[in-house]
Amino acid sequence: MEEYINNLKNRYATKKFDVSRKLTADQMQLLINTLILAPSSFGLQPYKFILVEDAQLLEKLREACYNQPQVTESSMFVVLCYRTDINEKMVDNYIRKISEVRKVSEESLEGYRTGMLKAIESMSPEQVQTWASRQVYIALGFLLDAAAQNKIDACPMEGFNKDSVDEILSLKDYNLKSSVCCALGFRSSEDEAAKRSKVRLEEQELVITL
Amino acid sequence: MEEYINNLKNRYATKKFDVSRKLTADQMQLLINTLILAPSSFGLQPYKFILVEDAQLLEKLREACYNQPQVTESSMFVVLCYRTDINEKMVDNYIRKISEVRKVSEESLEGYRTGMLKAIESMSPEQVQTWASRQVYIALGFLLDAAAQNKIDACPMEGFNKDSVDEILSLKDYNLKSSVCCALGFRSSEDEAAKRSKVRLEEQELVITL
Repeated sequence: MEEYINNLKNRYATKKFDVSRKLTADQMQLLINTLILAPSSFGLQPYKFILVEDAQLLEKLREACYNQPQVTESSMFVVLCYRTDINEKMVDNYIRKISEVRKVSEESLEGYRTGMLKAIESMSPEQVQTWASRQVYIALGFLLDAAAQNKIDACPMEGFNKDSVDEILSLKDYNLKSSVCCALGFRSSEDEAAKRSKVRLEEQELVITL
Repeated sequence: MEEYINNLKNRYATKKFDVSRKLTADQMQLLINTLILAPSSFGLQPYKFILVEDAQLLEKLREACYNQPQVTESSMFVVLCYRTDINEKMVDNYIRKISEVRKVSEESLEGYRTGMLKAIESMSPEQVQTWASRQVYIALGFLLDAAAQNKIDACPMEGFNKDSVDEILSLKDYNLKSSVCCALGFRSSEDEAAKRSKVRLEEQELVITL
């Protein structure tokens, strides 16, 4: 437990990556598996993750990210997106998948199916997007935590021109919108940000016991 | 890395907790420290966490959570809330804290302060709440992950009557609104949900490489 907390204390939003150090295939797969295994409301996974490897796309993304160097200098750059096609068809596909994996009839899942549809239909299109985007943030939390616990450095990035990123990656064609980005790799020994003390509210400022 | 992924595979939304097994003080502190160390946009931590221990309050919350037994049968019940008082004063307090912890002058942080205020002021009050609520979900991700990696079971709960929860806990008095809940403890050996196979989209359905 102590090591777990120490790993969280050692993590920070990496500003300068070591461009000479790359994640291994195993490390990348660990991070991808973490994204796959992240929990979401109803288990619906209303998101997709864009792993950007093309150097030209990364250059363009860097501009859309207000020229933050982490975009091109990290070893792995992920754009976490929420789906814009959250509808009955998506729910039906999910129900079919549950039925296959758990070897139960689709009929036996009808109550679950109706519950999901009701929840989705009770929201405005904008509320559905807000809900989906929140689920993306659970996945972001899992990704950052997996990195920290496995000695990988990361920088989550919320500050970017979303419309530009969506256009550069043609996200509309995938029925996606960008929610948040994350650069991953290894910190440079020259990253001044690594030396700064972590600033957090005290427990008594943050936790209320009732 | 394999153990890390196995722990994620073993986690699930616990439906039935073992009421006889309680988290130790160390385990509770680990979870609280994880919440404190979770990252947030600008490091602003626009949230607070309500740890509900009072049996009467838990009974009332259970009703507001559509009678889900985890509320009263888990060992630790947390309501993750976003702050409704995200304003210049909050930013100033944060700047003061950075100045103290890092031993730098408040003047040297003026650019950071202005950047934060600009970001907040560029959003409508509703957008600020949406933004704050998304940060809560990073903390939720960290909490669920910390539980999984330390053999603690958890059930995140999005489905509850938010107005009722806010009223039961008098959250208005704290300038808070409930975002999501989480019950933590240990699974009952009778929890049927623990036996079901995990259903996740395949990597090729979830990850797009560009």
